[in-house]
Amino acid sequence: MAVSMETFARWKKTSLRKLDQSRKGSVDERARHVVSLLNSQERFFTTSSCSGRIVLVDGPPEGSAVQKKDCEWLFVSHDPCSSEDVVSALSRSSREAVLKFEAFVLHVQCHRLEDAQLLHSVAINSGFRNSGLTVSRTGKIITAVRSTHGLEVPLSYSGTLLVGAEYVHFLTQKANQKMEENFRRMHRFFQNLQAALTTETPALQGADDPTLPPGEGDSQTAVYKRRRKRQQHPSVAERDEEDGCSLDDCLDLFS
Amino acid sequence: MAVSMETFARWKKTSLRKLDQSRKGSVDERARHVVSLLNSQERFFTTSSCSGRIVLVDGPPEGSAVQKKDCEWLFVSHDPCSSEDVVSALSRSSREAVLKFEAFVLHVQCHRLEDAQLLHSVAINSGFRNSGLTVSRTGKIITAVRSTHGLEVPLSYSGTLLVGAEYVHFLTQKANQKMEENFRRMHRFFQNLQAALTTETPALQGADDPTLPPGEGDSQTAVYKRRRKRQQHPSVAERDEEDGCSLDDCLDLFS
Repeated sequence: MAVSMETFARWKKTSLRKLDQSRKGSVDERARHVVSLLNSQERFFTTSSCSGRIVLVDGPPEGSAVQKKDCEWLFVSHDPCSSEDVVSALSRSSREAVLKFEAFVLHVQCHRLEDAQLLHSVAINSGFRNSGLTVSRTGKIITAVRSTHGLEVPLSYSGTLLVGAEYVHFLTQKANQKMEENFRRMHRFFQNLQAALTTETPALQGADDPTLPPGEGDSQTAVYKRRRKRQQHPSVAERDEEDGCSLDDCLDLFS
Repeated sequence: MAVSMETFARWKKTSLRKLDQSRKGSVDERARHVVSLLNSQERFFTTSSCSGRIVLVDGPPEGSAVQKKDCEWLFVSHDPCSSEDVVSALSRSSREAVLKFEAFVLHVQCHRLEDAQLLHSVAINSGFRNSGLTVSRTGKIITAVRSTHGLEVPLSYSGTLLVGAEYVHFLTQKANQKMEENFRRMHRFFQNLQAALTTETPALQGADDPTLPPGEGDSQTAVYKRRRKRQQHPSVAERDEEDGCSLDDCLDLFS
Protein backbone atom coordinates (compact mmCIF):
# COMPACT_ATOMS: atom_id res chain seq x y z
CA MET A 1 0.00 0.00 0.00
CA ALA A 2 2.87 2.37 0.76
CA VAL A 3 4.19 4.51 -2.09
CA SER A 4 7.81 4.09 -3.20
CA MET A 5 10.51 5.83 -1.18
CA GLU A 6 11.21 8.00 -4.26
CA THR A 7 7.62 9.26 -4.36
CA PHE A 8 7.66 9.84 -0.62
CA ALA A 9 10.93 11.76 -0.83
CA ARG A 10 9.45 13.96 -3.56
CA TRP A 11 6.37 14.67 -1.43
CA LYS A 12 8.62 15.50 1.48
CA LYS A 13 10.71 17.94 -0.54
CA THR A 14 7.64 19.73 -1.93
CA SER A 15 5.94 19.89 1.45
CA LEU A 16 8.93 21.20 3.38
CA ARG A 17 9.65 23.81 0.68
CA LYS A 18 6.04 25.02 0.83
CA LEU A 19 6.22 25.22 4.61
CA ASP A 20 9.40 27.31 4.44
CA GLN A 21 7.88 29.74 1.99
CA SER A 22 4.56 30.22 3.78
CA ARG A 23 3.88 33.06 6.14
CA LYS A 24 3.31 30.44 8.82
CA GLY A 25 6.59 28.76 7.96
CA SER A 26 8.29 29.31 11.28
CA VAL A 27 8.04 26.39 13.64
CA ASP A 28 7.29 27.22 17.28
CA GLU A 29 10.54 27.43 19.22
CA ARG A 30 9.47 24.78 21.72
CA ALA A 31 8.47 22.26 19.04
CA ARG A 32 11.58 22.75 16.92
CA HIS A 33 13.64 19.84 18.28
CA VAL A 34 10.75 17.42 17.76
CA VAL A 35 10.12 18.69 14.23
CA SER A 36 13.85 18.50 13.39
CA LEU A 37 14.22 14.98 14.75
CA LEU A 38 11.30 13.76 12.64
CA ASN A 39 12.38 15.58 9.49
CA SER A 40 15.89 14.13 9.84
CA GLN A 41 14.35 10.71 9.22
CA GLU A 42 13.80 9.58 5.66
CA ARG A 43 10.44 8.01 6.49
CA PHE A 44 8.81 11.03 8.16
CA PHE A 45 8.04 14.66 7.52
CA THR A 46 5.97 17.10 9.54
CA THR A 47 3.13 18.92 7.83
CA SER A 48 2.05 21.13 10.75
CA SER A 49 2.75 21.77 14.40
CA CYS A 50 1.89 24.00 17.34
CA SER A 51 3.76 23.70 20.63
CA GLY A 52 0.66 24.67 22.63
CA ARG A 53 -0.83 28.05 23.44
CA ILE A 54 -3.07 30.16 25.61
CA VAL A 55 -5.52 32.15 23.50
CA LEU A 56 -8.30 34.63 24.11
CA VAL A 57 -10.79 34.75 21.23
CA ASP A 58 -13.61 37.26 20.89
CA GLY A 59 -16.54 36.40 18.64
CA PRO A 60 -20.27 36.20 18.11
CA PRO A 61 -22.21 33.64 20.18
CA GLU A 62 -21.64 30.02 19.24
CA GLY A 63 -24.08 28.75 16.66
CA SER A 64 -24.59 32.08 14.93
CA ALA A 65 -24.15 31.85 11.17
CA VAL A 66 -21.27 34.28 10.89
CA GLN A 67 -19.34 32.81 13.77
CA LYS A 68 -16.35 31.25 12.14
CA LYS A 69 -15.11 34.05 9.98
CA ASP A 70 -15.82 36.73 12.47
CA CYS A 71 -13.52 35.92 15.37
CA GLU A 72 -10.89 38.25 16.72
CA TRP A 73 -7.79 37.08 18.51
CA LEU A 74 -7.36 39.30 21.53
CA PHE A 75 -4.36 37.45 22.93
CA VAL A 76 -2.06 34.54 22.04
CA SER A 77 0.88 33.20 24.05
CA HIS A 78 3.03 30.13 23.45
CA ASP A 79 4.56 30.56 26.91
CA PRO A 80 3.10 30.85 30.37
CA CYS A 81 1.59 34.32 30.72
CA SER A 82 0.53 36.84 33.35
CA SER A 83 -3.08 37.46 34.34
CA GLU A 84 -2.49 41.18 33.71
CA ASP A 85 -2.01 40.36 30.03
CA VAL A 86 -5.27 38.42 29.99
CA VAL A 87 -7.22 41.10 31.89
CA SER A 88 -5.87 43.78 29.57
CA ALA A 89 -6.83 41.78 26.46
CA LEU A 90 -10.26 41.06 27.97
CA SER A 91 -10.96 44.77 28.21
CA ARG A 92 -11.00 44.85 24.42
CA SER A 93 -13.76 42.23 24.16
CA SER A 94 -16.92 43.55 22.53
CA ARG A 95 -18.73 40.23 22.08
CA GLU A 96 -18.12 36.83 23.72
CA ALA A 97 -14.56 36.24 24.84
CA VAL A 98 -13.37 32.69 25.51
CA LEU A 99 -10.05 31.76 27.13
CA LYS A 100 -8.55 28.51 25.84
CA PHE A 101 -5.54 26.42 26.49
CA GLU A 102 -4.69 24.30 23.46
CA ALA A 103 -2.04 21.61 23.86
CA PHE A 104 0.79 20.51 21.55
CA VAL A 105 -0.43 19.24 18.21
CA LEU A 106 1.63 17.73 15.42
CA HIS A 107 0.86 16.18 12.04
CA VAL A 108 3.45 13.87 10.56
CA GLN A 109 3.29 12.25 7.15
CA CYS A 110 4.77 8.75 7.28
CA HIS A 111 6.14 6.52 4.54
CA ARG A 112 4.68 3.19 5.58
CA LEU A 113 1.82 2.22 7.85
CA GLU A 114 4.38 0.67 10.23
CA ASP A 115 6.13 4.04 10.57
CA ALA A 116 2.82 5.69 11.45
CA GLN A 117 2.07 2.93 13.97
CA LEU A 118 5.43 3.41 15.66
CA LEU A 119 4.85 7.14 15.98
CA HIS A 120 1.28 6.62 17.20
CA SER A 121 2.50 4.20 19.82
CA VAL A 122 5.13 6.68 21.05
CA ALA A 123 2.48 9.43 21.17
CA ILE A 124 0.02 7.35 23.21
CA ASN A 125 2.76 6.20 25.57
CA SER A 126 3.82 9.81 26.12
CA GLY A 127 0.32 10.87 27.18
CA PHE A 128 -1.12 12.15 23.88
CA ARG A 129 -4.16 9.96 24.02
CA ASN A 130 -6.24 11.62 21.30
CA SER A 131 -3.64 10.77 18.66
CA GLY A 132 -4.65 8.83 15.57
CA LEU A 133 -3.90 7.98 11.96
CA THR A 134 -5.37 9.24 8.73
CA VAL A 135 -4.89 6.95 5.75
CA SER A 136 -5.83 8.18 2.29
CA ARG A 137 -6.43 5.79 -0.55
CA THR A 138 -3.56 7.31 -2.49
CA GLY A 139 -1.03 6.19 0.10
CA LYS A 140 -0.78 9.36 2.17
CA ILE A 141 -0.48 8.28 5.77
CA ILE A 142 -0.53 10.85 8.55
CA THR A 143 -0.13 10.46 12.30
CA ALA A 144 -1.79 13.26 14.27
CA VAL A 145 -0.37 13.73 17.77
CA ARG A 146 -3.13 15.19 19.95
CA SER A 147 -3.78 15.66 23.62
CA THR A 148 -6.95 15.39 25.67
CA HIS A 149 -5.56 18.27 27.70
CA GLY A 150 -7.47 21.54 27.41
CA LEU A 151 -9.29 24.43 28.97
CA GLU A 152 -12.14 26.42 27.45
CA VAL A 153 -13.76 29.12 29.52
CA PRO A 154 -16.29 31.74 28.33
CA LEU A 155 -15.51 35.03 30.10
CA SER A 156 -17.61 37.81 28.62
CA TYR A 157 -21.00 38.42 27.03
CA SER A 158 -21.66 41.43 24.76
CA GLY A 159 -18.28 42.70 25.91
CA THR A 160 -19.29 42.59 29.60
CA LEU A 161 -16.98 40.61 31.86
CA LEU A 162 -18.87 37.82 33.65
CA VAL A 163 -16.27 37.07 36.34
CA GLY A 164 -14.00 38.94 38.72
CA ALA A 165 -10.31 39.76 38.21
CA GLU A 166 -9.46 37.25 40.93
CA TYR A 167 -11.06 34.45 38.93
CA VAL A 168 -9.13 35.51 35.82
CA HIS A 169 -5.98 35.33 37.91
CA PHE A 170 -6.86 31.81 39.11
CA LEU A 171 -7.68 30.74 35.58
CA THR A 172 -4.41 32.07 34.18
CA GLN A 173 -2.55 30.02 36.79
CA LYS A 174 -4.50 26.93 35.70
CA ALA A 175 -3.68 27.61 32.05
CA ASN A 176 -0.01 28.08 32.92
CA GLN A 177 0.02 24.79 34.85
CA LYS A 178 -1.47 23.03 31.86
CA MET A 179 1.14 24.63 29.64
CA GLU A 180 3.92 23.32 31.92
CA GLU A 181 2.41 19.82 31.94
CA ASN A 182 2.14 20.08 28.17
CA PHE A 183 5.88 20.83 27.95
CA ARG A 184 6.65 17.83 30.17
CA ARG A 185 4.66 15.59 27.84
CA MET A 186 6.36 17.03 24.77
CA HIS A 187 9.70 16.29 26.41
CA ARG A 188 8.58 12.74 27.16
CA PHE A 189 7.43 12.39 23.57
CA PHE A 190 10.82 13.59 22.30
CA GLN A 191 12.68 11.18 24.58
CA ASN A 192 10.45 8.22 23.78
CA LEU A 193 10.75 9.01 20.09
CA GLN A 194 14.54 9.15 20.29
CA ALA A 195 14.58 5.84 22.15
CA ALA A 196 12.20 4.20 19.69
CA LEU A 197 14.20 5.39 16.67
CA THR A 198 17.48 4.29 18.19
CA THR A 199 16.59 0.94 19.61
CA GLU A 200 13.89 0.01 17.15
CA THR A 201 13.69 -3.73 16.58
CA PRO A 202 10.89 -5.97 15.36
CA ALA A 203 10.12 -6.74 18.97
CA LEU A 204 9.80 -3.08 19.83
CA GLN A 205 7.62 -2.43 16.84
CA GLY A 206 5.42 -5.15 18.27
CA ALA A 207 4.90 -3.12 21.43
CA ASP A 208 1.30 -2.52 20.42
CA ASP A 209 0.55 -6.16 19.93
CA PRO A 210 -1.85 -7.38 22.61
CA THR A 211 -1.71 -11.01 21.54
CA LEU A 212 2.01 -11.59 22.11
CA PRO A 213 2.50 -14.01 25.00
CA PRO A 214 4.37 -12.59 28.01
CA GLY A 215 8.09 -12.41 27.41
CA GLU A 216 7.70 -12.33 23.66
CA GLY A 217 8.08 -8.54 23.57
CA ASP A 218 11.49 -7.24 24.66
CA SER A 219 12.17 -5.27 27.80
CA GLN A 220 11.71 -2.01 25.93
CA THR A 221 8.09 -2.99 25.49
CA ALA A 222 7.69 -3.38 29.21
CA VAL A 223 9.15 0.08 29.76
CA TYR A 224 6.57 1.52 27.38
CA LYS A 225 3.78 -0.21 29.22
CA ARG A 226 4.87 1.12 32.57
CA ARG A 227 5.22 4.61 31.14
CA ARG A 228 1.77 4.45 29.70
CA LYS A 229 0.23 3.39 32.99
CA ARG A 230 1.92 6.22 34.81
CA GLN A 231 1.09 8.81 32.24
CA GLN A 232 -2.47 8.00 31.45
CA HIS A 233 -4.32 11.26 31.23
CA PRO A 234 -6.80 11.81 34.06
CA SER A 235 -9.63 13.19 31.96
CA VAL A 236 -9.65 10.11 29.76
CA ALA A 237 -9.28 7.78 32.70
CA GLU A 238 -12.16 9.58 34.38
CA ARG A 239 -14.31 9.10 31.33
CA ASP A 240 -13.72 5.37 31.52
CA GLU A 241 -14.81 5.06 35.07
CA GLU A 242 -18.44 5.42 35.51
CA ASP A 243 -21.91 6.45 34.82
CA GLY A 244 -23.67 4.23 32.36
CA CYS A 245 -21.64 5.14 29.29
CA SER A 246 -20.17 2.07 27.69
CA LEU A 247 -16.78 3.67 27.28
CA ASP A 248 -14.15 1.01 27.29
CA ASP A 249 -10.67 2.04 26.39
CA CYS A 250 -9.73 1.26 22.81
CA LEU A 251 -6.19 2.17 23.69
CA ASP A 252 -5.58 -1.28 25.11
CA LEU A 253 -4.27 -2.00 21.63
CA PHE A 254 -1.11 -0.39 22.90
CA SER A 255 -0.81 -2.12 26.24
CA MET B 1 -3.20 -7.21 6.46
CA ALA B 2 -6.83 -7.67 7.46
CA VAL B 3 -7.77 -10.80 9.38
CA SER B 4 -10.23 -13.26 7.84
CA MET B 5 -13.93 -12.49 8.11
CA GLU B 6 -14.27 -15.59 10.33
CA THR B 7 -11.73 -14.26 12.83
CA PHE B 8 -13.35 -10.83 12.76
CA ALA B 9 -16.81 -12.34 13.34
CA ARG B 10 -15.43 -14.26 16.33
CA TRP B 11 -13.91 -11.08 17.79
CA LYS B 12 -17.21 -9.30 17.26
CA LYS B 13 -19.21 -11.98 19.02
CA THR B 14 -16.85 -12.03 22.02
CA SER B 15 -16.72 -8.26 22.26
CA LEU B 16 -20.46 -7.67 22.05
CA ARG B 17 -21.13 -10.42 24.60
CA LYS B 18 -18.64 -8.84 27.00
CA LEU B 19 -20.25 -5.42 26.52
CA ASP B 20 -23.70 -6.81 27.31
CA GLN B 21 -22.50 -8.45 30.50
CA SER B 22 -20.57 -5.52 31.88
CA ARG B 23 -22.02 -3.05 34.35
CA LYS B 24 -21.46 -0.37 31.73
CA GLY B 25 -23.20 -2.50 29.13
CA SER B 26 -26.08 -0.16 28.45
CA VAL B 27 -25.56 2.08 25.48
CA ASP B 28 -26.61 5.73 25.90
CA GLU B 29 -30.15 6.18 24.58
CA ARG B 30 -29.09 8.89 22.16
CA ALA B 31 -26.27 6.84 20.65
CA ARG B 32 -28.29 3.66 20.31
CA HIS B 33 -29.34 4.06 16.65
CA VAL B 34 -25.75 4.76 15.60
CA VAL B 35 -24.44 1.77 17.56
CA SER B 36 -27.18 -0.49 16.14
CA LEU B 37 -26.57 0.61 12.56
CA LEU B 38 -22.85 -0.16 12.88
CA ASN B 39 -23.33 -3.48 14.64
CA SER B 40 -25.83 -4.57 11.96
CA GLN B 41 -22.92 -4.50 9.50
CA GLU B 42 -20.71 -7.56 9.23
CA ARG B 43 -17.57 -5.45 8.91
CA PHE B 44 -18.04 -3.26 12.02
CA PHE B 45 -18.61 -3.55 15.73
CA THR B 46 -18.60 -0.85 18.38
CA THR B 47 -16.30 -1.28 21.38
CA SER B 48 -17.37 1.84 23.33
CA SER B 49 -19.56 4.89 23.06
CA CYS B 50 -20.80 7.93 24.94
CA SER B 51 -23.47 10.19 23.45
CA GLY B 52 -22.01 13.28 25.14
CA ARG B 53 -22.37 14.63 28.66
CA ILE B 54 -22.15 17.53 31.06
CA VAL B 55 -20.11 16.57 34.14
CA LEU B 56 -19.00 18.25 37.33
CA VAL B 57 -15.91 16.63 38.81
CA ASP B 58 -14.41 17.44 42.21
CA GLY B 59 -10.80 16.57 42.87
CA PRO B 60 -7.39 17.57 44.13
CA PRO B 61 -5.49 20.24 42.15
CA GLU B 62 -4.19 19.14 38.77
CA GLY B 63 -0.69 17.75 38.91
CA SER B 64 -0.95 16.37 42.44
CA ALA B 65 0.16 12.78 42.69
CA VAL B 66 -3.11 11.35 43.89
CA GLN B 67 -5.21 13.19 41.37
CA LYS B 68 -6.49 10.50 39.10
CA LYS B 69 -7.88 8.02 41.56
CA ASP B 70 -9.26 10.60 43.88
CA CYS B 71 -11.94 12.34 41.84
CA GLU B 72 -15.58 12.51 42.80
CA TRP B 73 -18.36 12.92 40.29
CA LEU B 74 -20.72 15.53 41.67
CA PHE B 75 -23.00 15.61 38.64
CA VAL B 76 -23.45 13.85 35.28
CA SER B 77 -26.11 14.49 32.66
CA HIS B 78 -26.44 13.08 29.15
CA ASP B 79 -29.19 15.63 28.43
CA PRO B 80 -29.35 19.40 28.66
CA CYS B 81 -29.60 20.32 32.32
CA SER B 82 -30.68 23.16 34.59
CA SER B 83 -28.28 25.53 36.33
CA GLU B 84 -30.04 24.72 39.61
CA ASP B 85 -28.76 21.15 39.29
CA VAL B 86 -25.23 22.42 38.73
CA VAL B 87 -25.37 24.96 41.59
CA SER B 88 -26.73 22.29 43.91
CA ALA B 89 -23.97 19.83 42.94
CA LEU B 90 -21.35 22.58 43.30
CA SER B 91 -22.36 23.10 46.93
CA ARG B 92 -20.96 19.62 47.61
CA SER B 93 -17.50 20.51 46.29
CA SER B 94 -14.77 20.28 48.92
CA ARG B 95 -11.76 20.60 46.60
CA GLU B 96 -11.50 21.85 43.00
CA ALA B 97 -14.66 21.44 40.96
CA VAL B 98 -14.48 21.57 37.17
CA LEU B 99 -17.49 21.73 34.85
CA LYS B 100 -16.97 19.94 31.54
CA PHE B 101 -18.90 19.33 28.41
CA GLU B 102 -17.65 16.19 26.65
CA ALA B 103 -18.94 15.49 23.14
CA PHE B 104 -20.03 12.23 21.49
CA VAL B 105 -17.27 9.65 21.29
CA LEU B 106 -17.37 6.27 19.61
CA HIS B 107 -14.84 3.49 19.02
CA VAL B 108 -15.54 1.08 16.20
CA GLN B 109 -13.52 -1.98 15.31
CA CYS B 110 -13.40 -2.46 11.55
CA HIS B 111 -12.65 -5.52 9.45
CA ARG B 112 -10.46 -3.99 6.76
CA LEU B 113 -8.51 -0.75 6.56
CA GLU B 114 -10.91 0.40 3.82
CA ASP B 115 -13.85 0.02 6.20
CA ALA B 116 -12.05 2.15 8.79
CA GLN B 117 -11.25 4.76 6.14
CA LEU B 118 -14.88 4.96 5.06
CA LEU B 119 -16.02 5.48 8.64
CA HIS B 120 -13.26 8.02 9.28
CA SER B 121 -14.28 9.95 6.18
CA VAL B 122 -17.94 10.01 7.29
CA ALA B 123 -16.87 11.19 10.77
CA ILE B 124 -14.71 14.04 9.45
CA ASN B 125 -17.41 15.10 7.00
CA SER B 126 -19.96 15.19 9.82
CA GLY B 127 -17.85 17.56 11.90
CA PHE B 128 -15.93 15.11 14.13
CA ARG B 129 -12.57 16.48 13.21
CA ASN B 130 -10.47 14.83 15.94
CA SER B 131 -11.34 11.36 14.65
CA GLY B 132 -8.58 8.94 13.73
CA LEU B 133 -7.54 5.33 13.27
CA THR B 134 -5.62 2.95 15.47
CA VAL B 135 -4.00 0.02 13.69
CA SER B 136 -2.43 -2.77 15.72
CA ARG B 137 0.07 -5.14 14.21
CA THR B 138 -2.25 -8.07 14.85
CA GLY B 139 -4.87 -6.70 12.49
CA LYS B 140 -7.11 -4.91 14.96
CA ILE B 141 -8.24 -1.72 13.29
CA ILE B 142 -10.26 0.84 15.20
CA THR B 143 -11.81 4.12 14.11
CA ALA B 144 -12.27 6.58 16.95
CA VAL B 145 -14.94 9.22 16.30
CA ARG B 146 -14.02 12.33 18.29
CA SER B 147 -15.00 15.96 18.37
CA THR B 148 -12.99 19.12 18.97
CA HIS B 149 -16.07 20.40 20.75
CA GLY B 150 -15.66 20.93 24.49
CA LEU B 151 -15.87 23.10 27.56
CA GLU B 152 -13.71 22.84 30.67
CA VAL B 153 -14.20 25.40 33.41
CA PRO B 154 -12.69 25.33 36.93
CA LEU B 155 -15.30 26.63 39.35
CA SER B 156 -14.12 26.13 42.92
CA TYR B 157 -10.94 26.03 44.98
CA SER B 158 -10.79 24.23 48.35
CA GLY B 159 -14.54 23.91 48.07
CA THR B 160 -15.02 27.70 47.75
CA LEU B 161 -16.98 28.85 44.72
CA LEU B 162 -14.93 31.24 42.58
CA VAL B 163 -17.77 32.65 40.49
CA GLY B 164 -21.33 33.92 40.99
CA ALA B 165 -24.56 31.98 40.46
CA GLU B 166 -25.26 34.11 37.40
CA TYR B 167 -22.07 32.92 35.76
CA VAL B 168 -22.96 29.30 36.53
CA HIS B 169 -26.31 29.96 34.85
CA PHE B 170 -24.60 31.42 31.77
CA LEU B 171 -22.18 28.51 31.66
CA THR B 172 -24.94 25.91 31.90
CA GLN B 173 -26.64 27.55 28.92
CA LYS B 174 -23.37 27.32 26.99
CA ALA B 175 -22.97 23.66 27.90
CA ASN B 176 -26.56 22.98 26.84
CA GLN B 177 -25.97 24.73 23.50
CA LYS B 178 -22.93 22.59 22.93
CA MET B 179 -24.94 19.50 23.79
CA GLU B 180 -27.60 20.46 21.21
CA GLU B 181 -24.93 21.11 18.57
CA ASN B 182 -23.42 17.75 19.50
CA PHE B 183 -26.77 16.03 18.85
CA ARG B 184 -27.05 17.76 15.47
CA ARG B 185 -23.62 16.43 14.53
CA MET B 186 -24.50 12.94 15.72
CA HIS B 187 -27.60 13.09 13.55
CA ARG B 188 -25.53 14.23 10.59
CA PHE B 189 -23.08 11.39 11.28
CA PHE B 190 -25.93 8.87 11.33
CA GLN B 191 -27.38 10.21 8.07
CA ASN B 192 -24.02 10.38 6.31
CA LEU B 193 -23.23 6.88 7.52
CA GLN B 194 -26.53 5.53 6.22
CA ALA B 195 -25.92 7.23 2.88
CA ALA B 196 -22.36 5.93 2.66
CA LEU B 197 -23.40 2.36 3.50
CA THR B 198 -26.28 2.44 1.04
CA THR B 199 -24.68 4.11 -1.94
CA GLU B 200 -21.14 2.94 -1.38
CA THR B 201 -19.28 2.44 -4.66
CA PRO B 202 -15.58 2.41 -5.48
CA ALA B 203 -15.98 6.04 -6.50
CA LEU B 204 -17.50 6.98 -3.16
CA GLN B 205 -14.81 5.13 -1.29
CA GLY B 206 -12.43 7.34 -3.25
CA ALA B 207 -13.99 10.44 -1.68
CA ASP B 208 -10.85 10.94 0.34
CA ASP B 209 -8.61 10.76 -2.66
CA PRO B 210 -7.10 14.18 -3.31
CA THR B 211 -5.41 13.14 -6.53
CA LEU B 212 -8.57 12.25 -8.47
CA PRO B 213 -9.06 14.78 -11.29
CA PRO B 214 -12.31 16.80 -11.09
CA GLY B 215 -15.30 14.77 -12.22
CA GLU B 216 -13.62 11.48 -11.42
CA GLY B 217 -15.41 11.17 -8.07
CA ASP B 218 -19.16 10.72 -8.25
CA SER B 219 -21.73 13.28 -7.20
CA GLN B 220 -21.89 11.77 -3.72
CA THR B 221 -18.30 12.86 -3.28
CA ALA B 222 -19.25 16.43 -4.09
CA VAL B 223 -22.01 16.32 -1.49
CA TYR B 224 -19.51 15.18 1.11
CA LYS B 225 -17.18 18.01 0.23
CA ARG B 226 -19.88 20.63 0.56
CA ARG B 227 -21.02 19.17 3.84
CA ARG B 228 -17.53 19.23 5.18
CA LYS B 229 -17.02 22.88 4.24
CA ARG B 230 -20.25 23.82 5.97
CA GLN B 231 -19.57 21.79 9.04
CA GLN B 232 -15.97 22.54 9.70
CA HIS B 233 -15.62 23.12 13.38
CA PRO B 234 -14.79 26.70 14.34
CA SER B 235 -12.17 25.93 16.95
CA VAL B 236 -10.12 23.92 14.48
CA ALA B 237 -10.62 26.46 11.73
CA GLU B 238 -9.52 29.13 14.16
CA ARG B 239 -6.41 27.22 14.99
CA ASP B 240 -5.51 27.13 11.31
CA GLU B 241 -5.77 30.83 10.85
CA GLU B 242 -3.02 32.67 12.46
CA ASP B 243 -0.24 33.47 14.76
CA GLY B 244 3.00 31.94 13.71
CA CYS B 245 2.11 28.29 14.34
CA SER B 246 2.70 26.26 11.23
CA LEU B 247 -0.62 24.51 11.53
CA ASP B 248 -1.78 23.44 8.12
CA ASP B 249 -4.78 21.23 7.91
CA CYS B 250 -3.96 17.56 7.50
CA LEU B 251 -7.62 16.97 6.84
CA ASP B 252 -7.26 18.03 3.22
CA LEU B 253 -6.77 14.31 2.67
CA PHE B 254 -10.57 14.21 2.79
CA SER B 255 -11.38 17.15 0.53
